[in-house]
Amino acid sequence: MKIKPLKGMNDYLPVQAELRDYLQRKICEVYEDSGFQRIYTPIVEDIENLDKSEGGDNLNLIFKIMKRGEKLTKAIGNGDPSVLSDMGLRYDLTLPLSRYYANNRASLPTPFKVIQMDRVYRAERPQKGRMREFTQCDIDILGSDSPNCEIELIHTTAKALLAIGIDHFKVKVNDRRILRSVLSSVGFAEDDLDSVCISFDKLGKIGPEGVKSELESKGFDDRLIGRFMELIAHGPFSLDYVKSLVTDAGHVDGLSRIIEVSRRLADGRYEIEYDMTLVRGQGYYTGTVFEIESLDFNSSIAGGGRYDNLIGKFLKDDIPAVGFSIGFERIFSILSDRGSNIADLKKKIVILYDEDEIEQAVCRAESLRDKYKVSLFIRPKKMGKFLNKLETQGYDGFQVLGKDEKVRFFAVEDR
Amino acid sequence: MKIKPLKGMNDYLPVQAELRDYLQRKICEVYEDSGFQRIYTPIVEDIENLDKSEGGDNLNLIFKIMKRGEKLTKAIGNGDPSVLSDMGLRYDLTLPLSRYYANNRASLPTPFKVIQMDRVYRAERPQKGRMREFTQCDIDILGSDSPNCEIELIHTTAKALLAIGIDHFKVKVNDRRILRSVLSSVGFAEDDLDSVCISFDKLGKIGPEGVKSELESKGFDDRLIGRFMELIAHGPFSLDYVKSLVTDAGHVDGLSRIIEVSRRLADGRYEIEYDMTLVRGQGYYTGTVFEIESLDFNSSIAGGGRYDNLIGKFLKDDIPAVGFSIGFERIFSILSDRGSNIADLKKKIVILYDEDEIEQAVCRAESLRDKYKVSLFIRPKKMGKFLNKLETQGYDGFQVLGKDEKVRFFAVEDR
Repeated sequence: MKIKPLKGMNDYLPVQAELRDYLQRKICEVYEDSGFQRIYTPIVEDIENLDKSEGGDNLNLIFKIMKRGEKLTKAIGNGDPSVLSDMGLRYDLTLPLSRYYANNRASLPTPFKVIQMDRVYRAERPQKGRMREFTQCDIDILGSDSPNCEIELIHTTAKALLAIGIDHFKVKVNDRRILRSVLSSVGFAEDDLDSVCISFDKLGKIGPEGVKSELESKGFDDRLIGRFMELIAHGPFSLDYVKSLVTDAGHVDGLSRIIEVSRRLADGRYEIEYDMTLVRGQGYYTGTVFEIESLDFNSSIAGGGRYDNLIGKFLKDDIPAVGFSIGFERIFSILSDRGSNIADLKKKIVILYDEDEIEQAVCRAESLRDKYKVSLFIRPKKMGKFLNKLETQGYDGFQVLGKDEKVRFFAVEDR
Repeated sequence: MKIKPLKGMNDYLPVQAELRDYLQRKICEVYEDSGFQRIYTPIVEDIENLDKSEGGDNLNLIFKIMKRGEKLTKAIGNGDPSVLSDMGLRYDLTLPLSRYYANNRASLPTPFKVIQMDRVYRAERPQKGRMREFTQCDIDILGSDSPNCEIELIHTTAKALLAIGIDHFKVKVNDRRILRSVLSSVGFAEDDLDSVCISFDKLGKIGPEGVKSELESKGFDDRLIGRFMELIAHGPFSLDYVKSLVTDAGHVDGLSRIIEVSRRLADGRYEIEYDMTLVRGQGYYTGTVFEIESLDFNSSIAGGGRYDNLIGKFLKDDIPAVGFSIGFERIFSILSDRGSNIADLKKKIVILYDEDEIEQAVCRAESLRDKYKVSLFIRPKKMGKFLNKLETQGYDGFQVLGKDEKVRFFAVEDR
């Protein structure tokens, strides 16, 4: 039998599980206080829903579950590997949410402000910081096209980060419609805009030269690429400058307002800025996109955007929708490394007892459990060694049954 | 696109999710106060670990994940469906825990008192109350063979049930070693004991006649079956009577002590009784087995037992282990139907605002969020209808921005 977890998936030790629970509880508390409501959806989805979902590259990373019984036998006889599976593990929480909303719409408020904190799965090539099983913390607002949704999502997500001690970050916002207008203004054809956006998204990773050669390999006209490279050479751009390039100023004004109001609500606690180069990977985003960058770690810790057409795939009507997702594993790794202290938990103590005194030990423990988390251990032969081990494992103190009734704490400051 | 969740799997509405969270938090609080520590393991396990795990019938119910890329192509070429998969969804939390303990033993206390509350998957034929994705709440004690572990598990599990308002139940205990001795005393051969136990486990479901014909169809000697039927016709049995039947009285004495101490700790709040017919389905149980029956619903709501050989499949040494699992879905369904009230949560209110007043609305909401969960809604045209809907959706009150600063509650008792 194999004792390691599968690659890209983790066992969490008690001290790690405690931190994960604490962070999720804190984040959820902020979300709930802000009027969002938690839901749960299954981890497994119909394979067709997943396959048709415009999840971009994630569609290649779906873990597929095999058909069973006769259906499997028939599918194998068919010889086509694509029919072997009828279900898959979800790769994000947005697709299940869209299905959920379509299924339960009649019972939900409009707009619906929703929390999801749960696991998702991607068959990524495992590497440091990239996992195959990981947790996302999402809030979404469904059923409203007001830009106030964007303002609330940015405000609430930032508040959640501040609440768990992440306080040095920048919120970057863009609107894909503005980016498309800018690309149109350079001369790219309507049909090519998505493809150009995808290359442009890689600017941060592969630099201007990388983007240029990718556009060349896609067969775009050299003069067009030249004009485009000239444009981006002058960045970063202000929204005012961009407004002068595009024909439909409405989206620019909308984005300006989102940024201005969000900046006032931030009140200096974090930065908000327009970033014309921000695209985000998902195929389903239709308007605003945003991302939070940790300035301490120079990495993205949250991302989201507006996806006004995804729910329409499940219903006849389009339902406007926008969401913001915290990458929980990045947050967890940052705060684990920092040795984050979990302030508001009960202390953990141990009662040591003789094996035949279990009843008295349980009663004594019960009398202390309002105040402490109390674990029972049979008194070991080598007390000193045992107590040292308890201390390293995060216990705060101990009491020996039958000796006196004092709790003895390991650390002086606990006394 | 399909809008229903997959069969046997559920979407949970906000009010259901709130109850699920509340129940899990309460149960976990009892477990943590009692000195157990929470861990997390992946939902996906190596397929060989699952297949070799002695999970009884559950092994036929594993959702299998397909290999990918070249490995899949090769496996299809092979023609054998059993090699198409290399991973599977776990069918319980005990097998992953055993692997986890083998993997992380050096970092864990001895004995290790552990909490798992998480999802498991079984490809059951969906029917009322039987799901394909469901949650279990387990506590286990690993690394100790003291019967005090059984006492602690029974006491702690019962406490958790009491804490969430389940108060009319009976704990049934047995020891498979005693049952085997009884079967030996009738004359069954050592090698047949497991098979007889499996038939005997169905006594409650199929009755004595059903057990008899199952034993007949398994080809047992008629006289042996006759003696056995005669024995069970005189049940239920006291432990004293059983002690007179078997040769090794030690296990009977051990079980007596567990029952006596547990009964005193129960202090009349619930019943504890010996049940010679209790077997439990899992193949891996080696000694004590227990089950909690709801007396209001006449159904099993928790079950567990000792599995001293399972961890040994992952390590060279055998590690004694015992666990108790609450069937969370049964509990959730009982308490949903009862209309359980979640006492200790903040009230939920709404602030209604004009669309261009988002900034003031957020600031007002923030000033109320210490006391309430506050959700923002743009003021609708038809106020009355909107407020009625809010009330039915579980909101407690509302405030209109710019009108006055009062929160108006829907229910009189909230004022």
